[in-house]
Formats: sequence, structure tokens, C-alpha cells
Amino acid sequence: MRKVAILGIGQTKIDEHWEKSLREIGGDAALAAMQDAGVEKVDALFVGNMLASIVNGQNQLGTFFADWVGLWKQEAVKIESACGSGAAAFRAAIMAVASGDVDSALVLGVEKMTDKAGRDVTAALATAADADYEVEQGISFVGINALVMRRYMYEYGWKHEDFAPFSINAHANAMHNPYARLHEKITVEKFEKSSMVATPINLLDASPIGDGAAAMVIVPADRVQRKPRVTVAASAASTDTIAVHSRKDPLFLQAAYASSKRAYEMAGVAPKDIDVFELHDAFSIMAALSLEASGFAERGQGVRLGLDNKIGIGGEIPVCTRGGLKARGHPVGATGMYQLVEVVQQLRGECGKTQVDGAKIGMAQNIGGSGATILTHILKSER
Amino acid sequence: MRKVAILGIGQTKIDEHWEKSLREIGGDAALAAMQDAGVEKVDALFVGNMLASIVNGQNQLGTFFADWVGLWKQEAVKIESACGSGAAAFRAAIMAVASGDVDSALVLGVEKMTDKAGRDVTAALATAADADYEVEQGISFVGINALVMRRYMYEYGWKHEDFAPFSINAHANAMHNPYARLHEKITVEKFEKSSMVATPINLLDASPIGDGAAAMVIVPADRVQRKPRVTVAASAASTDTIAVHSRKDPLFLQAAYASSKRAYEMAGVAPKDIDVFELHDAFSIMAALSLEASGFAERGQGVRLGLDNKIGIGGEIPVCTRGGLKARGHPVGATGMYQLVEVVQQLRGECGKTQVDGAKIGMAQNIGGSGATILTHILKSER
Repeated sequence: MRKVAILGIGQTKIDEHWEKSLREIGGDAALAAMQDAGVEKVDALFVGNMLASIVNGQNQLGTFFADWVGLWKQEAVKIESACGSGAAAFRAAIMAVASGDVDSALVLGVEKMTDKAGRDVTAALATAADADYEVEQGISFVGINALVMRRYMYEYGWKHEDFAPFSINAHANAMHNPYARLHEKITVEKFEKSSMVATPINLLDASPIGDGAAAMVIVPADRVQRKPRVTVAASAASTDTIAVHSRKDPLFLQAAYASSKRAYEMAGVAPKDIDVFELHDAFSIMAALSLEASGFAERGQGVRLGLDNKIGIGGEIPVCTRGGLKARGHPVGATGMYQLVEVVQQLRGECGKTQVDGAKIGMAQNIGGSGATILTHILKSER
Repeated sequence: MRKVAILGIGQTKIDEHWEKSLREIGGDAALAAMQDAGVEKVDALFVGNMLASIVNGQNQLGTFFADWVGLWKQEAVKIESACGSGAAAFRAAIMAVASGDVDSALVLGVEKMTDKAGRDVTAALATAADADYEVEQGISFVGINALVMRRYMYEYGWKHEDFAPFSINAHANAMHNPYARLHEKITVEKFEKSSMVATPINLLDASPIGDGAAAMVIVPADRVQRKPRVTVAASAASTDTIAVHSRKDPLFLQAAYASSKRAYEMAGVAPKDIDVFELHDAFSIMAALSLEASGFAERGQGVRLGLDNKIGIGGEIPVCTRGGLKARGHPVGATGMYQLVEVVQQLRGECGKTQVDGAKIGMAQNIGGSGATILTHILKSER
């Protein structure tokens, strides 16, 4: 396998972009990445997207964007793993470049989901769950996560406000990220008084959807001259049952455990070596479960990392350094690529007030469904 | 790059399977392929599917099927390139195995599309076209192909009945394929009297949709002991503009030309060396255009191969040997995998009355949209 490195990155601000089409949003991020990489062409395009077929009436996004950004005739494909689509596209691109069949690839995570009414989007998001055995019973995607959170609180004795630090940290970090959807500091009081969505998940436990795109150009590592050079040290994916009720233990993210374990082995590192961790805080409960399954906390103790001030920029394991899903925003199929782009920004030292000093090893973990598909990537900066 | 070979194949009969769910149809083909391969587990699952998110309310099909067929914890992903999804999944799997990151992969093409009314499916299929600039104008996917066919007839002076041999050949071959949707011999008279769909495309110019799945297990070539060993000699993909009206010449399948050219180079063969060609006859016009762009006929002369009896089993270039999309059926996201499974059947000599004598080199060409994404694969049998 050839070693792969990141040649360029690009992203758009996450927002309700009613003035821009799916084409334009994805194109903006793709062209920004190619400009940052200093290339006008790549061999192949990998697009991560979850909802365009339902919400925008557009399938075949690989070719759709290849056409739009001037990659006509090049190979192009779309990858979908629900909210894990972004990282899944990144992994497919890595294997293509690693195999030697493709010498350069553009990876684009993109989603435009705010043109439709909330009810439609809720139904579209439910396609991440099991249509026959979960959705058919009338439960929404938030509802499934609410059941998991409620069970976690019951099993381990945590109160709702114990989850506040995840949301407060994400919102604080997003203040310094111009691409973030929300720029609003919050407090424990605000967190507790926020509107309920599906008990016990309230509005400040849940990430906001949005329109956005993030992209990267990747190439064989020996083609990157830029210092520091950011390389892919590990790429791993694993799955769990599609329905949460099929799991022996719904409070353990088996696929996060398996994919992070493999990623640590591939990169030759341990959790203590990770300087930045962009985790998938679609809901605050998922932040806790992700930290536990990835080796940063004991079972049932993920929330303690927040309460003990260990997840901030100067902490033991800084998470959501650019705002996370919670405050940067969660344009579902694009999220995995935002996480990876943000890790690159940290490893390049481009994060200003939320820069983690001397960050050398960064991890991104992207989740599709309620823990059903989980991809873990570790990037390293080399000077 | 590691050389890749096919260890096992499986498929289901294409039909209106109202008695079976998406899960069951895909599972049947996947398990058949694993049984044929003699394995109970693989490292990764690649699913090709176009419509499940819209028609079945189910996304994340990688994990969905990994869960169902006992590949829990393994890596899994869904690939979508409209009607080219099957071959796109195959190509992604090839790169994963070739890269060395994955040692065995199951590729599954699956579609269940007959549970919905025709109007819903027509709208779903239109997502293969350009939502903003084609579909928004009210044109259906058949409508776009009808414009192309009409122009072709005008430019080159062919009559509608000149396309009959493609349909007659496909229907004749499907008589001997138990997995085919249609078992009905047709004649030029029947062809000409068939109901009109979108002038000049009538019912016998158009392939029937259906529910079905086809699968393969692929591994590094040195792991396959079976004789003959069927290996992947070439895998290539290319794109054209997403909208047909953007093309300088809408009668030339640029992406078929580019991907077949690259495939010939990779495999070290020429069109004359191809013993079997499973082409993408979603509409009879596409069969003609595919033959032309892939080097089997001059521009505008694809139909002549049919009129001159060159596309039958004993002919110069046998096409649609198991019925093609026209008569085997076209469960859109599964079709690319059916084509590849059928090429393997030919190279193994398992095709009975439609066996091409001594077939050693077979080609499959899968098209997404109206020529927007085209993948060409060449397989070889080694004794």
C-alpha cells in the first residue's frame, strides 16, 4: 500500500444556504480544496452524501460534481453510509490512491438539506435507521438516540446537566471558527432551559442540520512538499447491527471500539498519543459513548471527562475543537469531511484561538446511524 | 496493485418479488455468492444500490446487509452511481483488495423497486438525470433516451425496426436463463406493434425494471485454486456531462469510449479479442451507442451489427448472452453486478444453450444516467 497524504483542503460555511444550490455549495468546497492543493485536475472524485437523492432529487453525485468542477471525463463516484458518508468517501479514496490505480483524488462531503420542511428532513434522516424494524414503529432518529441516552442515565446515574460540558465546549470553540453554523456561547443554565426535542435530548444536546461541504485533495505522500506534511496514518471502518435493539449492549459503540483499535494499531499509537479528537457529537450522548469506546474513558464515565475539564483546548483530550457537530453544524453527509479538514487545520497549526499547541496526531471519528457504521481515521503531521 | 480474482458468484431471479423484502433479496444473492466461494466471512462488503433510500426508505445499505448476512463488525459501505451502481461497487471493492488493505470482499448489487406505483418509480429513476436542468423541465428518464434515439435515427437514416435485432437477441437468450425476468420469444412484428412509451422508444426497446440482486466474492488472485480461474484483467471508469444537452455530440458515449479504451490497454486486448460483451441495453439505442463507442462498430453503424446477425451466440460479438437488461431485467442498482456475474458464468462455461464456445475474455459495461457514468470491466479465464 502506498502511503497517502493530504495536498489541499477546502470548506464552506455551514448555514441555511437558500441562495445557493447543491451544485454551488459542493463546487465551492471542491474548488477551494483544489486551489489549496495547487492542482487543476485530479484522477478521481469521491463524493460523500446521504440525502441528495431524497431531498434534492439528485443521484449520481460523483458525475454531477465532476461535471460542475471541471473534472469532466474523470472517474467519479458517490459513497453513502448515512451520517458516516463523508469519512466513508475519504476511506474509499485512500484505498484507490493506495492501490496505485489512482494518483490523485478529490474527496467531497456535501449536503444541502434546509430547503425542505422539518418534517420531510426528519423522515429523510430516518433512512439511517432500520426501515422495517425501527422506523416502521414510528420512531424518529432523534427518538432512538433519546432511548439510548435515557438508558445511559439510568445505568450510570448521571443527571441531564452532566452532559452540558460537551455542548458548552463545542459552542465555545465554534466562536473562533468562521465556517461554523452557530456562533453563540452557552452556559449550563441555557443548556438546562433549552426546548425539549425527545426526552431527555433537548435542543442543546442535539446538533443542528445545515447546508455545507468540505473537501480534500489526497495524493501519494511522496508528492507532498508542503511542511508540515499531513499524512494518513490509519484508516479503519467497522459496523454494528443496523437496529439498536439488536445489540446485546446498546450503550457500547462496538464499531467505534473496533475501528479505533485497528486505527491505533495501524498508526502505532495509543489514546494518550492523540492530540486532537474530532468526535461525532450528533447528540451529547454520542460524545460520551465515543470517548468510552475509543479508549479515553471507562464504561459509563465519558461524561466525567467533560465535568473534569479535560475536553477543552488545553485539556487532556481536546474534542470538537472547531465546534463539533453541535456548533459547527451537521450537514449529515458532509460532516465526516469537515472533521477531517479540521484535523488537518490543527496539524497545520491554522486554528488560531482554538489551536491545540504542538498538535501532531489527530483523530476523526465519523458515525453513520446510531453507531451502525463507524470510521476512525488518524492523521499525522510530519515536519 | 495486487491482481484480483473472483472466488464465488450468486444471483436471484429478477421478478416482482412482493413476497420478499429488500433484505431477503440482497441476502439471498450474498449468501449464494459466499456459498459458491466456500467462505463464511469476508473482510468487507460493498453494496451497489440506486433507489433504496427513496423507494424503500432505507439508507446505509452496507451495514444493513452486513448485519443481515452475518458480517457483523466487518467493514461495509454503499456505492451509488445511478444505474451504474453495481459496477461502481465492484470497482471500489477491487481497489480495496488491490491496495492490500482488505483481503476479501463481498460485492452485492441489489434493487427492490416494484413495491411502489409506476409514477413513483419513474420519479425515482429521474434522479439519475440532472435535477435542475433536465428533470425540472418535466422530462422523464425514458424521455431523455427517446430524444437521443430520435436524433440517431435522423442523423444516420435508420428506421425503428432496424433496432429490433437487439431486443430479439436479448429475449432469445433469456429463454435459457432461469434468473431472467422475461421468458418470451419475440419477433420483428411483435417489436413493431409493441406499445409506445416515449416516441420512438416502445415497450420492446425498453428494459423492464424488477427486484433482484447479484453478488460476488473477490480475493487476491493467488488465493483462487478453482479452474478456470476468472481474474479481473481491467477495471476502468469515466464520466461525461450529467445532462445530455451539455454534450457537443449527444450520439457519442464519450465515457464508454474512454473507459473501454483504458480497459483494453490495461488488459492488453483489442475489441476483436472480446468473446462476450455484456452491454447496457437499458434502451435499444444504448446498445447501438455502446457498441460504437467501445470500438465494435463505426459511428452510426451499431445497429448494423444486429441486422447482420453478428450479436448472437455464434456471432462476431455476442451481446446480452443471458438476456441483457432487456429480457434478463434491469433492477437498476443491481444490473452492473448481474452483467459481471454473467460474464463469469460464460468464462466458467456454465451457460448451457447460450454458452459462447471457448469464451476466454469477457467484457461488461455498466452505464449510470444517459451515458454520464460508464464503467468497463474485462475478465479473463485462466486455465
